[in-house]
Amino acid sequence: MTPRARTSRRTFLAGSAGTAAVLALPTIATKAGASSPTTATPTATADVAVVGAGLAGLTAARRLVAAGHSVVVLEARDRVGGRTLNHSIGAGKVAEAGGEFVGPTQDHIVALAAEVGVGTFDAYDTGQNIYVNGGQRIKYSDTGLLGTAPPDPLLLVDIIKLSQQIDQMAAKFPVATPWTAPNAAKHDSQTLATWVRGNSLNADGILALLAPFTQALVGAEPGDVSFLFVLAYVASAGDETHPGTFERLFNVRGGAQQSRLIGGSQVVSENVAAALGSQVHLNTPVRRIEQTATDVTVTSDALVVTAKHVVVAVPPALAARIDYAPLLPAARDLLSQRLPMGALMKVEAVYPTPFWRADGLTGQFLTVGGPVGYSFDNSPPDGAPGVLAGFVGGVQNLTWGPRPAAARKAAVLAQFARIFKDDRFLSPSEYFEMDWTLEEWSRGGPTAIAGPGTLTQYGPALRAAVGRIHWAGTETSDYWQGYMDGAVRSGERVATEIGAAL
Amino acid sequence: MTPRARTSRRTFLAGSAGTAAVLALPTIATKAGASSPTTATPTATADVAVVGAGLAGLTAARRLVAAGHSVVVLEARDRVGGRTLNHSIGAGKVAEAGGEFVGPTQDHIVALAAEVGVGTFDAYDTGQNIYVNGGQRIKYSDTGLLGTAPPDPLLLVDIIKLSQQIDQMAAKFPVATPWTAPNAAKHDSQTLATWVRGNSLNADGILALLAPFTQALVGAEPGDVSFLFVLAYVASAGDETHPGTFERLFNVRGGAQQSRLIGGSQVVSENVAAALGSQVHLNTPVRRIEQTATDVTVTSDALVVTAKHVVVAVPPALAARIDYAPLLPAARDLLSQRLPMGALMKVEAVYPTPFWRADGLTGQFLTVGGPVGYSFDNSPPDGAPGVLAGFVGGVQNLTWGPRPAAARKAAVLAQFARIFKDDRFLSPSEYFEMDWTLEEWSRGGPTAIAGPGTLTQYGPALRAAVGRIHWAGTETSDYWQGYMDGAVRSGERVATEIGAAL
Repeated sequence: MTPRARTSRRTFLAGSAGTAAVLALPTIATKAGASSPTTATPTATADVAVVGAGLAGLTAARRLVAAGHSVVVLEARDRVGGRTLNHSIGAGKVAEAGGEFVGPTQDHIVALAAEVGVGTFDAYDTGQNIYVNGGQRIKYSDTGLLGTAPPDPLLLVDIIKLSQQIDQMAAKFPVATPWTAPNAAKHDSQTLATWVRGNSLNADGILALLAPFTQALVGAEPGDVSFLFVLAYVASAGDETHPGTFERLFNVRGGAQQSRLIGGSQVVSENVAAALGSQVHLNTPVRRIEQTATDVTVTSDALVVTAKHVVVAVPPALAARIDYAPLLPAARDLLSQRLPMGALMKVEAVYPTPFWRADGLTGQFLTVGGPVGYSFDNSPPDGAPGVLAGFVGGVQNLTWGPRPAAARKAAVLAQFARIFKDDRFLSPSEYFEMDWTLEEWSRGGPTAIAGPGTLTQYGPALRAAVGRIHWAGTETSDYWQGYMDGAVRSGERVATEIGAAL
Repeated sequence: MTPRARTSRRTFLAGSAGTAAVLALPTIATKAGASSPTTATPTATADVAVVGAGLAGLTAARRLVAAGHSVVVLEARDRVGGRTLNHSIGAGKVAEAGGEFVGPTQDHIVALAAEVGVGTFDAYDTGQNIYVNGGQRIKYSDTGLLGTAPPDPLLLVDIIKLSQQIDQMAAKFPVATPWTAPNAAKHDSQTLATWVRGNSLNADGILALLAPFTQALVGAEPGDVSFLFVLAYVASAGDETHPGTFERLFNVRGGAQQSRLIGGSQVVSENVAAALGSQVHLNTPVRRIEQTATDVTVTSDALVVTAKHVVVAVPPALAARIDYAPLLPAARDLLSQRLPMGALMKVEAVYPTPFWRADGLTGQFLTVGGPVGYSFDNSPPDGAPGVLAGFVGGVQNLTWGPRPAAARKAAVLAQFARIFKDDRFLSPSEYFEMDWTLEEWSRGGPTAIAGPGTLTQYGPALRAAVGRIHWAGTETSDYWQGYMDGAVRSGERVATEIGAAL
């Protein structure tokens, strides 16, 4: 693992809309040993225990506290933010090593950010993108018909046809209940690769092009994911009044990569956590959740919490590793065995300036092959220093992840120089990586994927509370699953669920 | 859960080939507190710690002890045998509630059974099977061309064609390295359902017929599993000199369901465990495995074992729930997120006699629909009492598992009576069920399944030791994965691996 600097925790911004949360701080009783299964572990009581201090858990906690309920948040890591992570690049500036983009219809994360004093800025997107596929190298602007998708003459007709077909299906897709979609059983018994083969003129070409997209978006290959999951994911790229589209998911301009958060995405979690104050406990991995007819007992390595309800706001594959008593219903456990995390690494090179901008380039490239499949300009708002980031996902992650760090760095920088035809990329002032598959408390990224058969058979267990256990996390969101907005939405949903029950 | 009687542990049979194991019994030091992370937990030391006292773990322990190494086996349950389980039906007789059949080329389980004094007998297979599909009801003998597969006139041509195609591919399949198979990438980017659709005259009919087979065999639907996994599974149904075939996998006569073990399959594990004596610890779920350059520390709820090597002989989805320090390599952890257990329940009705035999029936039926998709005569060797057993797997398990036990029992017995056209099936002297999805220490059954993309990308991590951690369990076997024979083979393999290293 490469070293990662952490930004210091920011102080909650007094006077913002989030002040109510501060006023509602409950008192947490912490006493040693009483009624704890591990006699030496301190205990606490609260209305609600929240497992995971990512955006989902923190949003749930913030909402519950605002409604007057007491909350204890248990976070396994030594930091908050989950799959968002700021990396210091000096002079008080950061580049994100995890989730970072926001865009149209992602109003929930944007509103939460504003409440805690975090604004947005436009992702740099001026100039031309580069597309490299074998011997073909094309510069193109995403202001054209295809947006971020490349105008490859051999694939143009298929790109338009397939994206229209997907958009049509996504437009009437029941995002909260994918198993009720038209032809759900048929779509869920095949992979995206199979569907492409049945609907393309140049299937091999389309599948090769799709790989860097699915690698970056979900850390997987077109042959790994259920086509129903893909439809659900695309349909999820919208809101209650704007049906999800392929274009909104993929594009920068007008899409999910349009904007960024000032100060880095992790600051939202840090500010929410600061407002929650001592209710947020770091270094407290939760090992066991017991529930009775009247309460839940949540046992972490450092604190045992007794509460009326518990929010589990971690990815399904990690939720599966908690010990539940009584056992979860079979369908829920089997679901959690069927939603693996994708494989994703982010690599970033820092340069004194984003010199590619002067050459009329956005910094975005899309290429068939690796290590990096998709790159983008990840510089701070003022463009100093310049940061070029890239995704190494799916098979590229599996191929490059185990190799020596120095070899991987050399390959990434050589690829940057080759694709941009500019040797300045070979000499960054800093280079850093974040391989989410190595993170104990994520074990992959950016999100969970569903293979065939999962959503139609096990999907109903994704969001259904099990007694006093409520499931949050971006994977459980109807809109923008896999994104920060979905995480925030899921936190809001469980806060409403629990608020109604308390 | 229905109550389950347990057979008493049998005494090791002196004089059998297994006596060597008794002679090699090492002394296990058990002292309170010394160098234990949980100060109150007793500790032990041994050459090898084994996690899981199913056939895989017990075989490994037995082999290692026979080679003169000391072993401690940690079993989470209050019994040994893993996915084998004897259910008492009175008068000292049993019917198996878990894995039970053995057949040609399954020489490893048969040899182990013989070593511990357990012989085999022929599964009852005299007379005619019944096939019901919609309004169609056919009686047929499995001595015909198709074996256990039904002679449905609408599907006959496809059954012959598809099974021949699969057998041809299985014949040259590299069972230890499925990702190197011809066209592995293509096969692994599609489901079995997709392959059937591309190769059948009557795909809908074949898929409907395949469902009860895949439900019973792997607890899943044809649309859930990778076609490469299916080829690997079929190819696995053989040995080093007999390539696996579709027929050997499915058939009773000459196939994997040909024989049973006298006294019930669990007795093999019980006898092996009895020979290991106090080295086998029940009620010791393993929570954590730490390894250093020189040893491993295996922490269970009741005992902490320090050893040179550890064998993890539990399904991958359960291995994922152990806490490893240092963390497992990414590919191994991601693999364990991608091998979910199937969903399978066994239902069994006991009658004073197997009265169907007098009517010229084997007791086997195959039907499209549920609750039961496939039934068989599970009576003791002497045919008294009569036991009819059935599999409720895949979507049938998900549908029927959550319903009230009384409703499920009524539906099963009504289905038996309807299919056999015999109301005597409505009044068993006993009825019992075993839903493996409700078992904390299996969380599904009968085995793990692989969806698309798993074997080609993550397969190499299935068997590869991680330092001093060695992976056993039927899922890791080259031949007869998913079967008792595969479990025994996997235990033998890790014993050889570790024996070479000690």
